[in-house]
Amino acid sequence: VTTQTTTVALLGGTGDLGEGLALRWGRDTDHELLVGSRDPDRAAAAADGYAAALADRGHDASLAGLDNAAAAARASVAVLAVPPYHVGDTVAAVADGLDAGDVLVSPAAGMTRDGDGFHAHRPGAGSVTRVAADAAPDGVPVVGAFHNLPAGRLADLDADLGIDTLLVADDDDARETVRALAAGIEGLRPLAAGPIANAPEIEGLTPLLINVAANADGLHDLGVRFR
Amino acid sequence: VTTQTTTVALLGGTGDLGEGLALRWGRDTDHELLVGSRDPDRAAAAADGYAAALADRGHDASLAGLDNAAAAARASVAVLAVPPYHVGDTVAAVADGLDAGDVLVSPAAGMTRDGDGFHAHRPGAGSVTRVAADAAPDGVPVVGAFHNLPAGRLADLDADLGIDTLLVADDDDARETVRALAAGIEGLRPLAAGPIANAPEIEGLTPLLINVAANADGLHDLGVRFR
Repeated sequence: VTTQTTTVALLGGTGDLGEGLALRWGRDTDHELLVGSRDPDRAAAAADGYAAALADRGHDASLAGLDNAAAAARASVAVLAVPPYHVGDTVAAVADGLDAGDVLVSPAAGMTRDGDGFHAHRPGAGSVTRVAADAAPDGVPVVGAFHNLPAGRLADLDADLGIDTLLVADDDDARETVRALAAGIEGLRPLAAGPIANAPEIEGLTPLLINVAANADGLHDLGVRFR
Repeated sequence: VTTQTTTVALLGGTGDLGEGLALRWGRDTDHELLVGSRDPDRAAAAADGYAAALADRGHDASLAGLDNAAAAARASVAVLAVPPYHVGDTVAAVADGLDAGDVLVSPAAGMTRDGDGFHAHRPGAGSVTRVAADAAPDGVPVVGAFHNLPAGRLADLDADLGIDTLLVADDDDARETVRALAAGIEGLRPLAAGPIANAPEIEGLTPLLINVAANADGLHDLGVRFR
């Protein structure tokens, strides 16, 4: 089996999802991982921490920390692991360094919270993935993925996943690139869910997972498997 | 183990979901099942068909067909297995026969379809479950449940389920009644997801399941398991 090595930037990679993806890709693949942050010192500290956690388990991962723009410029795939209201700004901040054919990945979901639970909060564009696509430079496709992952379990390398992640894209090559990246994580199964127009229903699954974890006995930090 | 017997009306029970629930409860429980339809002859024919299918497998189920109002009047739990745009009308048509403490169950989800896929279409009230609750007589609680079930697999008694159904309710006793009914179906796990205010995210999962089945290779007639 030949495994292609990809340079992946985790923009906002000091957060929970960035940590989980960095640790999983660092353990399960040979990808070059660039942790991005608005603050390059925080990015470097996070990358060092992830590398140390992997080294403790005997994994020699390729991890470095950079500011978001520098990380995106060096990568061929950049994951927008930032809060939903920072997606547009983050794409704008890194756009100059993106080359045609680079791929942006949008995992964020807009949510509100009230006394009953969490609720989907769609941006005016319809979905956060669409916000990213609208902000992306020409020739840089966006793939929606990694929306519904339990961040705590992702970052706990002792935890089995056994869950799915859904992909939406309007560009087949970009979808395949992200599908292969997702499939590289042990226990994570990527499933295609159509074009970006289908992103709202995927982003709406994120608050549902939180509501189920808050109300169903004995379950927490949930992912989902389609079957 | 003592199993309580409940009289359950399946309003609109000649459709796919009604058929699946009737066959599963008929096989796996001793509940008295009343298939409802606007046309009592169609209801009786469907009930006879379900009973014959169960008898072929050696199950002597209690099944009868009635018009919706008569079925609801005799039952303590009535499942609104009708299209989303008929939920309000159906509740109104059966309201006179409901007693305080009877429970209505709302499984419908509003959807639209376009060239990309299926999309959530919320009624003005916020969810179909809320439409049912708003239409229900005083003292008759509504539980949202059975939204995300693969109807074809449900009606195929050779198919294993291994999936979850989510419950939303504002009345704890009613939620428990429906939880127990759901748990009586082999391979179906009921999970609480909070109050009816959390129904929109559950109803939004239904179009997502269709989109995944339409796009992911090798998967069809999907349910979901939270894990």
